[in-house]
Amino acid sequence: MLFVDAVVWKMHLLYVCAIDVTELKNACVCFQEEPGPGPGGGLCFADGCRRVDYVLVYHSKRRQSQHRLSVVSNGNVPSQSHTPSRRSTKGDILEAVLEAGLAMEPANELQDKIREEFERGLQEEGLEIEHDKEMRTVRFTRLHVPWSVLSREAELLKIRVPTKKTYQLKEKTGLMGVINSFWTKINQLFQPGVPEPQDPRTRVLSQPFSRDKLHLVIKEHLQKASPCVGLIGCLLFCRFDIKSKNSLFSNAIRGRIMLHEEWANYGACYKYQPMDLIRKYFGEKIGLYFAWLGVYTQLLIPASALGVAVFLYGCLTVDTNVPSQEMCDERLNFTMCPLCDRVCDYWQLSSICSTARTSYLFDNHATVGFAIFMSLWAAVFLEHWKRRQRCLQHSWDLTGMEDDEVRKSTFPHNVILYRIIVFAVMSMNPDHEAKANVRVTVTTTAVIINLLVVLVLDEIYGAIAAWITELEIPKTESTFEEHVILKAFLLKSMNAFAPVFYVAFFKGRFAGRPGDYVYVFKDFRMEECSPGGCLIEVCIQLGIIMLGKQLIQNNVFEIAIPKLKKMYRTYKEEKDGSADEEDKDSKREPQRWDLDYDLEPYEGLSPEYMEMVIQYGFVTLFVASFPLAPVFALLNNVIEIRLDAAKFVTEIRRPDAVSAKEIGIWYNILSGISKFAVITNAFVISFTSEFIPRMVYQYLYSETGTMHGYTNHTLAYFNTRNFKPGTAPHDTDFDRQLRICRYKDYRDPPWSPEAYQLSKQYWSVLAARLAFVIFFQNLAMFLSMLVAWLIPDVPRSLKEQLKREKALMMDLLLTEEADKQCTQSHPLTTTNNDVVIKCLGEGSSEDSPVPMLREIRRRYCNSKINMNMH
Amino acid sequence: MLFVDAVVWKMHLLYVCAIDVTELKNACVCFQEEPGPGPGGGLCFADGCRRVDYVLVYHSKRRQSQHRLSVVSNGNVPSQSHTPSRRSTKGDILEAVLEAGLAMEPANELQDKIREEFERGLQEEGLEIEHDKEMRTVRFTRLHVPWSVLSREAELLKIRVPTKKTYQLKEKTGLMGVINSFWTKINQLFQPGVPEPQDPRTRVLSQPFSRDKLHLVIKEHLQKASPCVGLIGCLLFCRFDIKSKNSLFSNAIRGRIMLHEEWANYGACYKYQPMDLIRKYFGEKIGLYFAWLGVYTQLLIPASALGVAVFLYGCLTVDTNVPSQEMCDERLNFTMCPLCDRVCDYWQLSSICSTARTSYLFDNHATVGFAIFMSLWAAVFLEHWKRRQRCLQHSWDLTGMEDDEVRKSTFPHNVILYRIIVFAVMSMNPDHEAKANVRVTVTTTAVIINLLVVLVLDEIYGAIAAWITELEIPKTESTFEEHVILKAFLLKSMNAFAPVFYVAFFKGRFAGRPGDYVYVFKDFRMEECSPGGCLIEVCIQLGIIMLGKQLIQNNVFEIAIPKLKKMYRTYKEEKDGSADEEDKDSKREPQRWDLDYDLEPYEGLSPEYMEMVIQYGFVTLFVASFPLAPVFALLNNVIEIRLDAAKFVTEIRRPDAVSAKEIGIWYNILSGISKFAVITNAFVISFTSEFIPRMVYQYLYSETGTMHGYTNHTLAYFNTRNFKPGTAPHDTDFDRQLRICRYKDYRDPPWSPEAYQLSKQYWSVLAARLAFVIFFQNLAMFLSMLVAWLIPDVPRSLKEQLKREKALMMDLLLTEEADKQCTQSHPLTTTNNDVVIKCLGEGSSEDSPVPMLREIRRRYCNSKINMNMH
Repeated sequence: MLFVDAVVWKMHLLYVCAIDVTELKNACVCFQEEPGPGPGGGLCFADGCRRVDYVLVYHSKRRQSQHRLSVVSNGNVPSQSHTPSRRSTKGDILEAVLEAGLAMEPANELQDKIREEFERGLQEEGLEIEHDKEMRTVRFTRLHVPWSVLSREAELLKIRVPTKKTYQLKEKTGLMGVINSFWTKINQLFQPGVPEPQDPRTRVLSQPFSRDKLHLVIKEHLQKASPCVGLIGCLLFCRFDIKSKNSLFSNAIRGRIMLHEEWANYGACYKYQPMDLIRKYFGEKIGLYFAWLGVYTQLLIPASALGVAVFLYGCLTVDTNVPSQEMCDERLNFTMCPLCDRVCDYWQLSSICSTARTSYLFDNHATVGFAIFMSLWAAVFLEHWKRRQRCLQHSWDLTGMEDDEVRKSTFPHNVILYRIIVFAVMSMNPDHEAKANVRVTVTTTAVIINLLVVLVLDEIYGAIAAWITELEIPKTESTFEEHVILKAFLLKSMNAFAPVFYVAFFKGRFAGRPGDYVYVFKDFRMEECSPGGCLIEVCIQLGIIMLGKQLIQNNVFEIAIPKLKKMYRTYKEEKDGSADEEDKDSKREPQRWDLDYDLEPYEGLSPEYMEMVIQYGFVTLFVASFPLAPVFALLNNVIEIRLDAAKFVTEIRRPDAVSAKEIGIWYNILSGISKFAVITNAFVISFTSEFIPRMVYQYLYSETGTMHGYTNHTLAYFNTRNFKPGTAPHDTDFDRQLRICRYKDYRDPPWSPEAYQLSKQYWSVLAARLAFVIFFQNLAMFLSMLVAWLIPDVPRSLKEQLKREKALMMDLLLTEEADKQCTQSHPLTTTNNDVVIKCLGEGSSEDSPVPMLREIRRRYCNSKINMNMH
Repeated sequence: MLFVDAVVWKMHLLYVCAIDVTELKNACVCFQEEPGPGPGGGLCFADGCRRVDYVLVYHSKRRQSQHRLSVVSNGNVPSQSHTPSRRSTKGDILEAVLEAGLAMEPANELQDKIREEFERGLQEEGLEIEHDKEMRTVRFTRLHVPWSVLSREAELLKIRVPTKKTYQLKEKTGLMGVINSFWTKINQLFQPGVPEPQDPRTRVLSQPFSRDKLHLVIKEHLQKASPCVGLIGCLLFCRFDIKSKNSLFSNAIRGRIMLHEEWANYGACYKYQPMDLIRKYFGEKIGLYFAWLGVYTQLLIPASALGVAVFLYGCLTVDTNVPSQEMCDERLNFTMCPLCDRVCDYWQLSSICSTARTSYLFDNHATVGFAIFMSLWAAVFLEHWKRRQRCLQHSWDLTGMEDDEVRKSTFPHNVILYRIIVFAVMSMNPDHEAKANVRVTVTTTAVIINLLVVLVLDEIYGAIAAWITELEIPKTESTFEEHVILKAFLLKSMNAFAPVFYVAFFKGRFAGRPGDYVYVFKDFRMEECSPGGCLIEVCIQLGIIMLGKQLIQNNVFEIAIPKLKKMYRTYKEEKDGSADEEDKDSKREPQRWDLDYDLEPYEGLSPEYMEMVIQYGFVTLFVASFPLAPVFALLNNVIEIRLDAAKFVTEIRRPDAVSAKEIGIWYNILSGISKFAVITNAFVISFTSEFIPRMVYQYLYSETGTMHGYTNHTLAYFNTRNFKPGTAPHDTDFDRQLRICRYKDYRDPPWSPEAYQLSKQYWSVLAARLAFVIFFQNLAMFLSMLVAWLIPDVPRSLKEQLKREKALMMDLLLTEEADKQCTQSHPLTTTNNDVVIKCLGEGSSEDSPVPMLREIRRRYCNSKINMNMH
């Protein structure tokens, strides 16, 4: 554990090097020129010229014999880190020591020894260490990484850095150019107010860092233009504190101010997110999360617009809709059978007129089209994200990044058990809001079934988790994380979606018919949907979830609970620390790391992703029954982005920058949801909505070819003499001699030889429903595949850019080649790289960016000879 | 064109360098040591010390003013080549010249100028050229590529080469080790008799070629052990000519002999293919084809075994099967309605007893399970191939290969048109064998429908192709090839599968019922399947296709036609060339390139892939109706591999080695077929086989819960009075007063109020069929996805190997690092790399392959100091 915690910093640090590796060399110089207030202003070592790159913290409570060494800036570093496997030998040794230690009663001496050994290891790898001079409860160990170590590691890890070489993107001409510039201008309104580092059409060539080729790398450029120069120095200090800005780190602070003003701010919610800045400050993993959230929110806009249009279409056509007219028509006088035994009375169908009309708003012809549209939308969204991710990978220089480092998990089993328990507890916790949605009329069956599902799944989950714990512990960290996420998702989604599934597909399906109801536990009838149909219940449920739950989650869980937690922590710290060293502490002015240590630790991105992915599930899985879902999701997300942003900028410790190429398992989960959504929507349209029975009636049974008579057709006849003894209405407002009541089903009438059997209509409607499922599913799948195939994974503009960069890189290498050859053939010439490159740079003009080798050679050699002659 | 043809060689040559780049340096030396017979034995320049690396050939027929420069070794090089984009500037210029030339009447002077300019270009890039001394009709221009050029290009293209560093794979211990060694021994029987270059458990580390790091590269190793040393020199000379082996190229020839004996030989058909040798001789693209074919054939073995088992199960249980017993039972005495108007008589159901029994062999419970198995099989096959491909990529050092070079297609439009026409003609060409399969009883409808489909598709295809020609010409070459393949596949598969689809899903479905038949063109009744059902017809069709067509294709198309072509070519050449220069030609002893030029040009892999992919379609799409398909496919493929091998080794010119990472679009086509197969199998089981009606009868209608009475249940009643006038049997052996005959359908009887309407049974069976389709499709899709998810794309052993290699590479780099640091700190020590590396190599023992930096540094410096002292 100890060892893992501590090796972590290195990768993170190096990762940050990926951003501005060239600046680091000058970090010291910068300090020497402008020494900060006090001993480095809390930002450098006591000598004032070495920057603090990372801080380790441990608790030293001798009385309670508790020694913990943990990384201050992050709550769960180990689970997200990748350690180069070449350390494993040492890791194993230390771990053995550690485990031996854990086997004994934890003794202070052992702890100290382990720490000393660990720190010696760091020093032997070239790091420099500074300890606190005072002995306090919480002790900080500060690390400085010299340039030599950084450059070595950067080279070994093949980190890509910008070179001096730049090139211009081609400007489009003609009509495309006009449209393009118009679009750029429109877009300008939504851009965050972050100064762009340079002309947006200028691109910088990058290549893996190599100390031999340092002359190719730009140094001045980044230092001059980037708002985050010196970022490495403020890795740890994430609190947004506008008052404390000093001249030393004004650049870094300016970046944070910008993030606060242009991003973590409700006023900026109509703007794009400043992705590059986010990535610079938080690293790729968090950057990708926000980029993904942005893409998702952006694509919700067209879906919302169409959803609203479908709803409006329903509103406008409700008065011309024959079935709902018929249901509201009192002259038709359908006397319906009672809805429960003895207590309930017969009732008039026209009494549920309003429900029928409301139901139509969500269940009309347009809904079917919208459901197909949303299947395509999901495919487009996934493809679009792939493209965006690809572009980000390129502009963030992640393309060359090595794939996940494979390393043995060094977690003790109890961590896994703890995690599993936490997840189990979290998923056991019933969603009260979701439960509240189930209509007042429902019996307890829903709750029981829901609970049963959750319980059964918990059992299965427990078994699987235990099995995995046994089998998979020795595997890689990333696999483990993925498995945990996957399982957590399955459980949480079960909890979230099960009630909706129950109402949409099961409620009332097995309730039987008048005179032959199905009873559970002898006395309880299976619950039925309200007479308006199950669809309207699904709608209400979804509406409440999308609006209510999200608001509660946003307000209670994401704002209130962290505040409470912080209060508790502060209280506890005060109580713990007040006893022995209060005096010393109060004397000293709090350093940066003290302030920072007070913030909430970073808990990982999983909860954020989980929330959004479940929302995505609601938006896609049941869109056929609730076309307004995308609108509500959009409204929520516009707030969500800024809320998350504010949390990350001001509420929690600055997370360690973790490098990531993709959003990982979440993409697979989204893709799985999208595939599953096709099936659920097919079933919702077929079985929950009235679309298929209406179609079948119109084209198979209606004598006029219109919908007139549909309501009558869907109602079966029941002879009141066939009530089982004691189930007939006890007291009734209707005629006591009433012989026939109606109920909603396709069954043969009492006077048929097969009375109350499922009628031929039932079977034909069922066949039509099933045929529609097959048709819809295959159509949607085919179209999705077509969309995925038609949208190339790499945008054309990026493709061209890559091609260009490759050619330029080849050019650069050929120039070097020519240089070598020329030097050999004209050994008398001086080799002044800069002059030569400059001269060649002018030579390779914009029009022919790819000069031939011989051209280069000829001109280059000529220029050399000329130089020599002068 | 000219330019493209010619630049191509470079890439290919370089590609070959990827295999033994280090040998090339010594090629000259080798020659000088053993100068061949005559002027280099036809294998080197006149000076006898420069090897011929490539030969260009052009026709010089002044009288007919025909000048063509083409690459001799290959028929369609340009379409498969990738030219580095950096040449494009020059390419454009030359092309402009060329086009200007083509616009005018082709004049000899212009042609010569273009050629001269082109050759000058080659020389300026560092190549050396030798022309024929004599002036002949067919002239050869020989090229030599010096080491300096090769190494430069190898470095620029980052070609991976083996280093001196080797490592041992871990030997498994315990039970796994025993199983493993047992397995290895068993497998040894099937290994081709090709000497392995070294201990199979020893792996060589590879890294991108760099002239600075030449000391890391092994030179001796390959030269000593590889059977293909000097391969580069015989790039062109592909004829297998055992008699002409001379000492000079004995190594290269030994490789070819080995391929001929151990691979292109029916006697070797139970052995694995010598993949590395194939790849060395033909390049990755062809290597991947044979590897794919091998994996496919191998995986057909379990499928065949299970298919035979299903068939045998049918054979064993046919006597206990109630429905076929009932059909054969003459006592049941079902009098069936006549099968055609007037001419046909009533008939007894028991007369088709044998067909019913045969049908059962292919249509029993086991078939359903087998269909699900085959869906999984397809998923496993695709996953397995991905893994194999990944392993090949690693062992062939393709991992670092840059993705497709994107370049503008420089084809003139007429080539595309020609291709399209060829494809159109090929697809218009009806498959006579397939046609012949349709049973004798069929009317011409099948042919007409088939033809219509093909014609309509040809129209669509023509339109799409024209549209693409307009839109997509300026895109990349690979995209273009993919599009052409995709379209050709769609057309060919239409042609191949349409008749089967027709019989399986459409034939007899819309034929109507007795008394109300559907007529086309007034007089022709829609054809029906034979009374035994459509399934048996599908079986017969598939059987004939799988056996007959493949045999004909193998024998006629792949053996006879090339022979005829060659005869024609020889005849034409003789006729053309006999006139003017016969004397000169006959004087000279034919050189290697003359002999080689006589062979057939290489036509690309598309036809080979196409044949196999269509076979894959037959195996997967209709496996539910014909479980024996995999067996026939397996038998065919065992022959096919050796046939293709013989063709490649002895019949055609040695193809240019084309580098490829994957099988490209073919994988997508296979994946598409597999997905589609799930749907077709679901429909075959539901609608073509009797599985669902039997199930429905047994569980819904049978009073005894058994199948007894099933035959009666499936036959509807027809009152002979309801025959339309003139359609009743004219002459009958049955009772003239027969009132009721039976027919196979679910319709209400004549005495029901809804006489002859589709009965409730019809709708319930239809619903069951559709429900089964949904169930089967989703189950198979889910299981396939599960399989794809459970089988990791990268085999664990490879993953471990990669990890190991990475660690070793890191180790190597760190050693160099340490070397540098040590040299700085001990500037007096000599730097003898070899000694140091060797010493360190011993140090980093097998147990701890990843020593820490400081360990290395310490021991290394010590050793240096020691060395210094001695």
